[in-house]
Amino acid sequence: MRGGLIESLSTGGGGSILMAVMDGLGDLPGEPLGGRTPLEAAVTPNLDELARRSALGQHIPVSQGVTPGSGPAHLSIFGYDPVEHFVGRGILSALGIGFPILPGDLAARANFCTMDSSRMVTDRRAGRITTAKNAELCARLRSISIPGIEIFVEPEKEHRACVVFRGEGLSDAVSDTDPGHAGAGRLEPRALVPEAVRAAAAVSEFLAKSDELLSDEHPANGMLLRGFATMRPFPSVGSRFRIRAAAAAIYPMYRGVASLVGMEVLVCSDLRGQLEAVRAAKNGHDFVFFHFKPTDSSGEDGDYEAKVAALESFDSALPALASCGYDVICITGDHSTPCSMKLHSWHPVPVLLSGGPQRTGWSRRFTERECASGALGTFPGTDLMPLMLASAGRLEKYGA
Amino acid sequence: MRGGLIESLSTGGGGSILMAVMDGLGDLPGEPLGGRTPLEAAVTPNLDELARRSALGQHIPVSQGVTPGSGPAHLSIFGYDPVEHFVGRGILSALGIGFPILPGDLAARANFCTMDSSRMVTDRRAGRITTAKNAELCARLRSISIPGIEIFVEPEKEHRACVVFRGEGLSDAVSDTDPGHAGAGRLEPRALVPEAVRAAAAVSEFLAKSDELLSDEHPANGMLLRGFATMRPFPSVGSRFRIRAAAAAIYPMYRGVASLVGMEVLVCSDLRGQLEAVRAAKNGHDFVFFHFKPTDSSGEDGDYEAKVAALESFDSALPALASCGYDVICITGDHSTPCSMKLHSWHPVPVLLSGGPQRTGWSRRFTERECASGALGTFPGTDLMPLMLASAGRLEKYGA
Repeated sequence: MRGGLIESLSTGGGGSILMAVMDGLGDLPGEPLGGRTPLEAAVTPNLDELARRSALGQHIPVSQGVTPGSGPAHLSIFGYDPVEHFVGRGILSALGIGFPILPGDLAARANFCTMDSSRMVTDRRAGRITTAKNAELCARLRSISIPGIEIFVEPEKEHRACVVFRGEGLSDAVSDTDPGHAGAGRLEPRALVPEAVRAAAAVSEFLAKSDELLSDEHPANGMLLRGFATMRPFPSVGSRFRIRAAAAAIYPMYRGVASLVGMEVLVCSDLRGQLEAVRAAKNGHDFVFFHFKPTDSSGEDGDYEAKVAALESFDSALPALASCGYDVICITGDHSTPCSMKLHSWHPVPVLLSGGPQRTGWSRRFTERECASGALGTFPGTDLMPLMLASAGRLEKYGA
Repeated sequence: MRGGLIESLSTGGGGSILMAVMDGLGDLPGEPLGGRTPLEAAVTPNLDELARRSALGQHIPVSQGVTPGSGPAHLSIFGYDPVEHFVGRGILSALGIGFPILPGDLAARANFCTMDSSRMVTDRRAGRITTAKNAELCARLRSISIPGIEIFVEPEKEHRACVVFRGEGLSDAVSDTDPGHAGAGRLEPRALVPEAVRAAAAVSEFLAKSDELLSDEHPANGMLLRGFATMRPFPSVGSRFRIRAAAAAIYPMYRGVASLVGMEVLVCSDLRGQLEAVRAAKNGHDFVFFHFKPTDSSGEDGDYEAKVAALESFDSALPALASCGYDVICITGDHSTPCSMKLHSWHPVPVLLSGGPQRTGWSRRFTERECASGALGTFPGTDLMPLMLASAGRLEKYGA
């Protein structure tokens, strides 16, 4: 995407757009599926039918060969260069739980952990304590005070929490304290640049005080902080592309990224709620982001059968999505999560673009293979937003 | 490729990579081959078999429509933006003959030429004098001295030579002295920026003295200098991508470019020696560049039959390459050299990527046509290095 150009061409008028993102959509041919990809193996009559009326292609989330985290991958398909707009893990955690983070806040992803008597980490997840226990411990840690710095400790799920430091001049150039594997000691937070000395000292003091407050606990007798990130102002999709945007996502992380780019985060907690939210949002919004997680979870688990089932479940939901009346529907993923790798990967991500003037009739199914030779070609993830906007008639001509 | 990003994600660990470059690989459908390209016409059972287990695609060496020289084309597939890292003709000439060039050296490509009594150039190549005569004249010109500047005059083939000026502050912003066609006078070297006055004066003095020393010669009674280029420090592939890299190339030019990017240049002087070098280099290297010239030479000659034979010869060598045990094998070209054009061209270059997680099973052969609709899509030449690194598991995830 040409920075600045798409913004200058956005008219604010035109049709409505539904972007349905199947997380971790792309995959590789798998032995358990007879050499087919999950998309090839799944029975998806609704997607197939839509593919015949759509233009297909594939996007490269960040850059060829680069495996993206969920944050950068979503920013890319929302039209944000994910290198220019790097968002650290801590900010994503804070946004994901709906924490009202402010510019300048320093956020970190936290794990409760188990340490032995010699302060070695024996379990980086503290036996995955319950979310209720987590909340109780977070409440206790809120008593920690550091002069000049306000501290927030917020539970996520199981052993996961988020710590936010609010104060003047807190740089995020602080090294991680999580050793990354059991059997090692917690790492001391270090200032990676001179300006981060104050922040590193605050993190160090917080950890020492949390050790005291957790000393009588088991298994959660310690805390690991990583992904330090300072909240920077972010231009909204509304101001950039002149769309009124909303997000129907269940998982905190994706609600967080959507909120970061200024989308209204719709109330929903399951697939049925998401579909209702998408339908209702048609009134008053130009752009709705629908997030579907099971394709990624099953890929991460290496569960081919579950990924096929997830795709078929999306296919079953497609008529409901299609009937909401959005002028343009884009179906894609944020990145690939091949079952054989059980990880995110760098492979191109299938794209289907339906509605508006398209080169249709070339494809019979929505698969990696058909997308690789589709009408849209292979393009950077950041080009997806301009393609959706253009399809909806929301971009004016450039030049005379 | 995103500058800086790939470097920051390179772990230094992971699998080994063999990049086999068939020079001038890409071609066009040709009448003499019944409308097929040489790759389509060649009998290549080993490439075909490998293609079925690989992901295919095509790269654009510099930019769509741009015909690259060998230097920029190789820099691109080594992961260097060939515009940002422009290497002038003079430096390529010096590297090509193995001259031990140093940072700050000013190098120029030289031609012996014939001039008439009124100093008009009558033959820009001095009747293509023998290489032996060339060496004799170069030796004579080494007697030229200019205060504060060391001068090297090195023969290449026939009428071609290389002149290197070594001294403080020699800018390469000096205009060419070759008029480009016979019937015109040699051009006076001009300083294109004020800082180049000293360099232009040195070149001018060198030419005047060479005229004297060659005055009794015929046909080589003059010299034309062009492509002035200063040697700038070049970041190595080792420091950028954390690979220990080596090159198995025969021709000086390619050994020169490999050396420029910090690859160890392996001892070899024919195909058998190259194959042995590739096998031995597996021990102690993460990345080996294998260069195969006959595909380009036959393309430049417009010799379809020879190009088909060259491809079949590469195919015969493929089992030996494949048996060396590299984890990832990439087969590609630096640019296209269509037989019908007898020149380098701008057309996309076929890519085959094998090993590591790939979308395989889509292609039956390694041809321009299959590559154009392959799983990897069409991408800039500089993206090839990230794709090879990712396939070998040498890049970590970007962001959370």
